Amino acid sequence: MGLGIPAFPLTIVTHVLGVVATVLVLVWLVSFRGGLAWEDENKQLIFNIHPFLIVFGLIVHGGEAIISYKALPLKKEVKKVVHLGLHGAALSLGIIGIYTAFKFHNESGIANLYSLHSWLGIGVIVLYGIQWIYGFVIFFYPGGTPDIRRFSLPWHALFGLFVFVLAVGTATLGFLEKLTFLENTGLDKYGSEALLVNFTAIITILFGVFVVLSALADTPAAADDYEAI
Amino acid sequence: MGLGIPAFPLTIVTHVLGVVATVLVLVWLVSFRGGLAWEDENKQLIFNIHPFLIVFGLIVHGGEAIISYKALPLKKEVKKVVHLGLHGAALSLGIIGIYTAFKFHNESGIANLYSLHSWLGIGVIVLYGIQWIYGFVIFFYPGGTPDIRRFSLPWHALFGLFVFVLAVGTATLGFLEKLTFLENTGLDKYGSEALLVNFTAIITILFGVFVVLSALADTPAAADDYEAI
Repeated sequence: MGLGIPAFPLTIVTHVLGVVATVLVLVWLVSFRGGLAWEDENKQLIFNIHPFLIVFGLIVHGGEAIISYKALPLKKEVKKVVHLGLHGAALSLGIIGIYTAFKFHNESGIANLYSLHSWLGIGVIVLYGIQWIYGFVIFFYPGGTPDIRRFSLPWHALFGLFVFVLAVGTATLGFLEKLTFLENTGLDKYGSEALLVNFTAIITILFGVFVVLSALADTPAAADDYEAI
Repeated sequence: MGLGIPAFPLTIVTHVLGVVATVLVLVWLVSFRGGLAWEDENKQLIFNIHPFLIVFGLIVHGGEAIISYKALPLKKEVKKVVHLGLHGAALSLGIIGIYTAFKFHNESGIANLYSLHSWLGIGVIVLYGIQWIYGFVIFFYPGGTPDIRRFSLPWHALFGLFVFVLAVGTATLGFLEKLTFLENTGLDKYGSEALLVNFTAIITILFGVFVVLSALADTPAAADDYEAI
């Protein structure tokens, strides 16, 4: 894109936004929604694991994985393992996060898979899994031929950014859906909890914006890495 | 990005998806929601203008404006006017579309500007307006110096894609929010209307994906145009 800006300062902003998004979602779930639990008679506490694992797990780990080539002063081989490992963690935490939504629904007698949020969420995690497996096989082990790697790399980067943006958008749908449910059962539309949830969603979107900006920004070393993969 | 694929076939798919999204949103509003009206005792008909103008106006016109450099076999000067004009139409229709949401709320005694959808919608239209004015002044009239144009162009393209993706995401939030309201007042969660709205949202997202792909794809002629601006 030739933006002419260095990636490293953008990655610092990204880290900060990721920490802020994680803290905000935890403040919401712990201070306003009663905390998190794997098993409880209050099934809402089971649900609460879902937004935490999606924001902290899928999105923050996934975003950090994307920018790892730009953010870390390490050798290419090490950054590749960090990239693969963080994406593996994001995928695993995302799967558990989606499982908790089903667990909450099933234990509460709530219908599954009727909303756009749920449809897109399933789409995101399936595409994320395909992308991770493809990346593992082509770029890590056993590894594709140089021609396949060269052909795959720009598509791997573009498809990865697409799935990440879709994940951020789907999380945003989740914030709006949950808040709409709460407001329909009496929560103040302009109260502190409503404002907190909306701001958490906006910080999550900004995290996504800075991940994409960091990925597009220039880093001579990182550019070499990409070329050399 | 160097994707190595030609843009023109992608722009054909984009046109088709834009037509399908427009038809689907009209089928929903006319066949399931009673049609559209600027003035009516049934205030829902006033609301119905909102999704139509956002999808057909802001998003389809905006997307077609973005890909006009890749889609049209015309001279650069003509394509620039088409690009500017379609974005102007998108912005104008988007502003009227947002106005109808306020009109519906005010005439129905519904609160304004509490939801994430409304916050992001205001953000999108403000950013779209700033982007359009900046583009007009720098690239059309009176026009910036060659240095300013050269510096601005990649940022103009990147910021334009960002605002467009945010618009598609915000529209998706709108589909989910409206459907959640309807389901909370008794609409069948797995019924034909719910499926139609979700599929319309997915087609709108796919339109957005193909707009971005078309913008990133290679067109020798279009690349020359960009360089020459």
